[in-house]
Amino acid sequence: MILDQQLIEKHNNKLEKKHNRAFEFISQDIDDVEELIAKLQKFQIGIPSWALGTGGTRFGRFSGPGEPGSLEQKFEDVGLLHALNKSSGAISLHIPWDIPEDTARMKELARSLNITFDAVNSNTFQDQPQQEDSYKYGSLHHVDPKVRKQAIDHNIEVINYGKALGSKALTVWLADGSSFPGQLNFREAFQNTLSSLQEIYKHLPEDWKLFIEYKAFEPYFYSMTIGDWGQSLLLANKLGPKAYTLVDLGHHLPNANIEQIVSLLLMEGKLGGFHFNDSKYADDDLTAGSIKPYQLFLIFNELIDGMDLNGMEHATGLGWMIDASHNLKDPLVDLLQSVEAIKIAYAQALLIDRVALKAAQQANDVVKSQEILQDAFRTDVRPLVAESRLRSGAALNPVLLFEEEKLRDKLITERGLRTIATGL
Amino acid sequence: MILDQQLIEKHNNKLEKKHNRAFEFISQDIDDVEELIAKLQKFQIGIPSWALGTGGTRFGRFSGPGEPGSLEQKFEDVGLLHALNKSSGAISLHIPWDIPEDTARMKELARSLNITFDAVNSNTFQDQPQQEDSYKYGSLHHVDPKVRKQAIDHNIEVINYGKALGSKALTVWLADGSSFPGQLNFREAFQNTLSSLQEIYKHLPEDWKLFIEYKAFEPYFYSMTIGDWGQSLLLANKLGPKAYTLVDLGHHLPNANIEQIVSLLLMEGKLGGFHFNDSKYADDDLTAGSIKPYQLFLIFNELIDGMDLNGMEHATGLGWMIDASHNLKDPLVDLLQSVEAIKIAYAQALLIDRVALKAAQQANDVVKSQEILQDAFRTDVRPLVAESRLRSGAALNPVLLFEEEKLRDKLITERGLRTIATGL
Amino acid sequence: MILDQQLIEKHNNKLEKKHNRAFEFISQDIDDVEELIAKLQKFQIGIPSWALGTGGTRFGRFSGPGEPGSLEQKFEDVGLLHALNKSSGAISLHIPWDIPEDTARMKELARSLNITFDAVNSNTFQDQPQQEDSYKYGSLHHVDPKVRKQAIDHNIEVINYGKALGSKALTVWLADGSSFPGQLNFREAFQNTLSSLQEIYKHLPEDWKLFIEYKAFEPYFYSMTIGDWGQSLLLANKLGPKAYTLVDLGHHLPNANIEQIVSLLLMEGKLGGFHFNDSKYADDDLTAGSIKPYQLFLIFNELIDGMDLNGMEHATGLGWMIDASHNLKDPLVDLLQSVEAIKIAYAQALLIDRVALKAAQQANDVVKSQEILQDAFRTDVRPLVAESRLRSGAALNPVLLFEEEKLRDKLITERGLRTIATGL
Amino acid sequence: MILDQQLIEKHNNKLEKKHNRAFEFISQDIDDVEELIAKLQKFQIGIPSWALGTGGTRFGRFSGPGEPGSLEQKFEDVGLLHALNKSSGAISLHIPWDIPEDTARMKELARSLNITFDAVNSNTFQDQPQQEDSYKYGSLHHVDPKVRKQAIDHNIEVINYGKALGSKALTVWLADGSSFPGQLNFREAFQNTLSSLQEIYKHLPEDWKLFIEYKAFEPYFYSMTIGDWGQSLLLANKLGPKAYTLVDLGHHLPNANIEQIVSLLLMEGKLGGFHFNDSKYADDDLTAGSIKPYQLFLIFNELIDGMDLNGMEHATGLGWMIDASHNLKDPLVDLLQSVEAIKIAYAQALLIDRVALKAAQQANDVVKSQEILQDAFRTDVRPLVAESRLRSGAALNPVLLFEEEKLRDKLITERGLRTIATGL
Repeated sequence: MILDQQLIEKHNNKLEKKHNRAFEFISQDIDDVEELIAKLQKFQIGIPSWALGTGGTRFGRFSGPGEPGSLEQKFEDVGLLHALNKSSGAISLHIPWDIPEDTARMKELARSLNITFDAVNSNTFQDQPQQEDSYKYGSLHHVDPKVRKQAIDHNIEVINYGKALGSKALTVWLADGSSFPGQLNFREAFQNTLSSLQEIYKHLPEDWKLFIEYKAFEPYFYSMTIGDWGQSLLLANKLGPKAYTLVDLGHHLPNANIEQIVSLLLMEGKLGGFHFNDSKYADDDLTAGSIKPYQLFLIFNELIDGMDLNGMEHATGLGWMIDASHNLKDPLVDLLQSVEAIKIAYAQALLIDRVALKAAQQANDVVKSQEILQDAFRTDVRPLVAESRLRSGAALNPVLLFEEEKLRDKLITERGLRTIATGL
Repeated sequence: MILDQQLIEKHNNKLEKKHNRAFEFISQDIDDVEELIAKLQKFQIGIPSWALGTGGTRFGRFSGPGEPGSLEQKFEDVGLLHALNKSSGAISLHIPWDIPEDTARMKELARSLNITFDAVNSNTFQDQPQQEDSYKYGSLHHVDPKVRKQAIDHNIEVINYGKALGSKALTVWLADGSSFPGQLNFREAFQNTLSSLQEIYKHLPEDWKLFIEYKAFEPYFYSMTIGDWGQSLLLANKLGPKAYTLVDLGHHLPNANIEQIVSLLLMEGKLGGFHFNDSKYADDDLTAGSIKPYQLFLIFNELIDGMDLNGMEHATGLGWMIDASHNLKDPLVDLLQSVEAIKIAYAQALLIDRVALKAAQQANDVVKSQEILQDAFRTDVRPLVAESRLRSGAALNPVLLFEEEKLRDKLITERGLRTIATGL
Repeated sequence: MILDQQLIEKHNNKLEKKHNRAFEFISQDIDDVEELIAKLQKFQIGIPSWALGTGGTRFGRFSGPGEPGSLEQKFEDVGLLHALNKSSGAISLHIPWDIPEDTARMKELARSLNITFDAVNSNTFQDQPQQEDSYKYGSLHHVDPKVRKQAIDHNIEVINYGKALGSKALTVWLADGSSFPGQLNFREAFQNTLSSLQEIYKHLPEDWKLFIEYKAFEPYFYSMTIGDWGQSLLLANKLGPKAYTLVDLGHHLPNANIEQIVSLLLMEGKLGGFHFNDSKYADDDLTAGSIKPYQLFLIFNELIDGMDLNGMEHATGLGWMIDASHNLKDPLVDLLQSVEAIKIAYAQALLIDRVALKAAQQANDVVKSQEILQDAFRTDVRPLVAESRLRSGAALNPVLLFEEEKLRDKLITERGLRTIATGL
Repeated sequence: MILDQQLIEKHNNKLEKKHNRAFEFISQDIDDVEELIAKLQKFQIGIPSWALGTGGTRFGRFSGPGEPGSLEQKFEDVGLLHALNKSSGAISLHIPWDIPEDTARMKELARSLNITFDAVNSNTFQDQPQQEDSYKYGSLHHVDPKVRKQAIDHNIEVINYGKALGSKALTVWLADGSSFPGQLNFREAFQNTLSSLQEIYKHLPEDWKLFIEYKAFEPYFYSMTIGDWGQSLLLANKLGPKAYTLVDLGHHLPNANIEQIVSLLLMEGKLGGFHFNDSKYADDDLTAGSIKPYQLFLIFNELIDGMDLNGMEHATGLGWMIDASHNLKDPLVDLLQSVEAIKIAYAQALLIDRVALKAAQQANDVVKSQEILQDAFRTDVRPLVAESRLRSGAALNPVLLFEEEKLRDKLITERGLRTIATGL
């Protein structure tokens, strides 16, 4: 389904008056509102191909109707999101859930939908039907070189798909770990992982990045071989300049200060990408900003500060992606909510008076430092984010438009009630 | 120091124009802004007498200058806060840190400062110089009836002070617990606690409430005899209709859903009071709303919903109090920040469209339920809170006024650099 | 497969000399070793029908060969376990994963294998193919009375299966919860749950128990409607004398003191049953005793103390069951390891010098209390547990026998490589 | 007080028969029991000078009688411990709590007591009376170079004390951090810390080590500038070959896999030292092995494995130290319990069949890997530890001897009831 641009115009017309009043109100308090809007317009968040269907837990999955039944339909879904918010202009493919057999046709389809190809993702945490060796006891860290070889080859295959499509990064989430004390020799597991990654790294094109994700636990429950940022950074440093750490918000121990991790990785020049979601207990994979919006804002505070210092473009300096699971909500609406929350946090962080903050920090003025951050966070920036959409030809309120125009019903009509998307 | 009301007027005059613009903007979107402002004006948060000095950790305490050196000066501090924000019109005394020897004079002083007496607090977690038996191994739960008797008598003494002053509640925070497996018989500890509380309950005046606080850990590190809301509620139910559970935000295990606890306690008619603070790791006792402002908002959402259903007055239905530790910031400014954050959360929660929320919940419309809450939370309600202050004769921006008028310097002039307040 | 008793005898003969030396050594230090052995012989741990196949996570499941392909084969598996350790003489059925269509034949089969029927378990956390309404948004707590009715009817059906088989308890694990703030009205969810349980309770035979499980999170990630022991106990008290709380070790927030919860539930006469497993991070469902063996021992310490005080038989006073997931190990061996760890903890706890412990507690002798517990825990009780097996006709070392006799290979020969058991 | 060696002999004579039986029993199952005993004899755990008095929490401190009132008496206490267990032959001094003014006399005293000097510890988390600048907002990370200079100078002074005494390491526990978002610029704090440490490092003698401790939270409650092993390792790598990470068991987020951290630090050649204690919730500083003895064993498993691989001597390869707080128990007895628990864990880990474990790991035999570790852990190794003491001239049961001979009463007679030791 391709969204009729007239629907957006109709929608915007209806909301414009109220929007204008709010935008005008807030604009007066902002020094360079045009620059801020321009930044918001440029900021794009990649959509993972596996997040377009209903996700689940080990206890079950309650699929919804009208899910995309093919990779083409997944592209269309991302195209639809991007038409609605003009902030989701990239798709991140997961192999082998979504193999772009005919890459030329896929590129053409993407171009027609105005979307680009984000990082490609390998999968060595599940066994595929045709697969020779099992990943039950891990992949890149496996004690058996034959299994490692299989996993390395898979990653190289993924790179090749990515090259054909125009991706510029490979994301490796290594689920490898152990569930019982004694199962693993931690050091050997680490060193096997390193040597496997070195093999993969050799096949990485010069202008690519390798994103090394870490995770504290799950699917293994005693140790994860890349369990925290320290381990990921150690690997990235040993691998070389194209290797970076990727931060997924849900992959930490309780109470971890993620914003500090982000800050230090930027200091080391080794932050590569970001997976947005939210959580209360574990890797809950909830909508970004739905549980801890202030944390999201604080992370953007660090991102902006560190990227500016390093001279990195906000929009392109890091790989921005959502990695959530839509167990209860319509995946498309859930993604719209996530993108909105991310852009709100970004906008709030752009409002921070950094000169004053710096001065307050230098004076150990804890009260003022807090006031400056809270002042930005407490500001209602929604009109700014909406304005950036308006100017890009997107909808003032994408969620509302989706609901009012019954877009899911239209997809059901096209696709049927019972299609189930590949993914978790 | 009594604040000159002209300082407030001067301050307000300076900020009024900007404020009016913002207040006017937001007012247009609110159905009955007058009713909302009235609720905000009525809402008062008690200030604990021990929070007026600099707090510390077991590693040390970095006292600040100009701390109140006597109970009278503590009253003055609360009076000053109340003059600034007209939302801190009550003091909660802690015995024996702050014994109001001459209760008549203290009542008169409080009246002159326009403040009332909140719950009185007992202390059986420290040994006092003149004390016969030690609380090293607990107090109300102690294996030795003699120690329990001493702790019971202390609580009765605290009730008597409260009666003389006009308090209407006793807060018991029982630090009793154990630090090693085997140290305690949990059941006997619980039953000793119950029988001790029954003794205290007998001395509680008819129109008083007994607030039973719970805490997951610290100062004991293996078990706490009143460790969670379940244990507190069990005690409150066994004690009788005047006994209630008191919730302190920092007293939970990691990731606890405090808003659900609040909701269920209100359902059972057994929520009695609230201690506001914020935390990231443990009982960090940080400024309210400084770490998890969305959680604070969600708690107020439940409070309002449950209190309205029970026909309870927001302002008086529960005991509202700050219980924080001011290790780094000026205690008075820190308290101003806490009160502001609490009132912001309250105002946001008042904005929730409860009819629409109810309908969304009935329809399992998870998207809309989230949108409704986020819509309220993302609204910049600071002009509403400021307006409520303006109408009550308080400052539009109390923190700013405090800093601009160098109120702490004036207190230092009065009190000297080296006074140290009693408390933790 | 029925285990040839001669294999056990051969195995025991081989190990007997070494065993006798160890048993003799430890026996000298125990006052009434015969009574202790008798208790160990009587202690039986129920095996859930769903734990006989390989479990998984949301990321995948790596099934093993020779899994039971039918309910009959699941019975045989439990029979095999029981033949090996004479401590697993009961099966706990899960409906609808394991529907005992022909109950008479199933009872006969169980009798022939020497196993009895433990609690029956309902499932309202997954949708079944023929099911009219979905449990996506919950079951007993659902806003729609029609869905609640369906879930109630299912539970009544499960009771009926249990009656036919000779079960005496229904375990309700209610997965109901919410994943986003606002999704649920907590109070209504609680009250809907209560009224649903009241309907079920009406159908409970006089000599049955209702076990109400609680869980902190998963499969919902913001709130669980029966989230902690306090909520479960509240429900059990409102339901009546046949309703009890069931404790699953993995269902708590980080760092929870489970032994204290157990102790208080026994004090209130409301502890009904137990699900054994172990975990480091969340509901990891690992082998009992594999991560925190001291915690398991401390729990048994409380269980024995509380049950003795209440005059409850250890073997029959509570419902004992394993509830683990066998993602990496052979499920049968994993279950043997769990049973062994549970019996070790039980034996250690039986060794505690309770008179001395009581005296030390009364004297606040923290050092001695700790020494007494550690003395029991540090004792190598494996010869006691082995002796209890020997006397019951089981294997001295069940895991070793299983491996040496290649029992899984025999099951594969019988069942084939690719059978996959029902369950998670 | 110097312990009369005859008391030990009398005590050992009384227990010897029972001990011999147990030692003989276990010896038969061990290949080279003599080598194992020799390792246990050599293993020494340093005692911190601040742990000889009663510790406390921010809520209070319940001091015990007969505490050491001078540094000399602290030396005597360590001498007493060492006489009792011959495993505590080193003292770790903390400056400025315990300044060895007359270093020559102190060395002589230590020599006479048979104890050596472990790492010296600096303190920049408290303000001392004479101190010019405050550490309220940190020390080595401070925004003000003047404060950093003061903290650097203090560390150099501590090195000088250590040189005079014969210490070979400086332990820096940097409490620096922030309690509120915005308070700190994380990167600048890190870089200030680095440059401060570089200054200190310059003054480190060639044969010294610098131990960099990390801690997740407390005394700051939002961020710690050296908050986890990753940050500590980053600093150690930037500093040079003499800089190492020090692991304190209580300084982690909930559920952290400390044994994996230990393993990786050894892999990197950057593990320097160890602070033993135990905890359930936070930095509880409880007796080693009192809460999670299996974790302690698993850590020793990694230590032995990694040290053997690196060719490090167990006894001297790392700095071993207790860092606990004795809030409830007699500090000396508590330390005896800690040393005992540490040596038990070490002895158990020495029993691990490493050849079999390696083979099982290579075969992904999770069952057997677990059995091998549990087999070692479930063995009652107390007779081995006792035998190692017996051969070194120490007591078979130091805690029992301490209690039976009423050693604390003797210390009270010497020192009086009211001396309070310096420390936390």
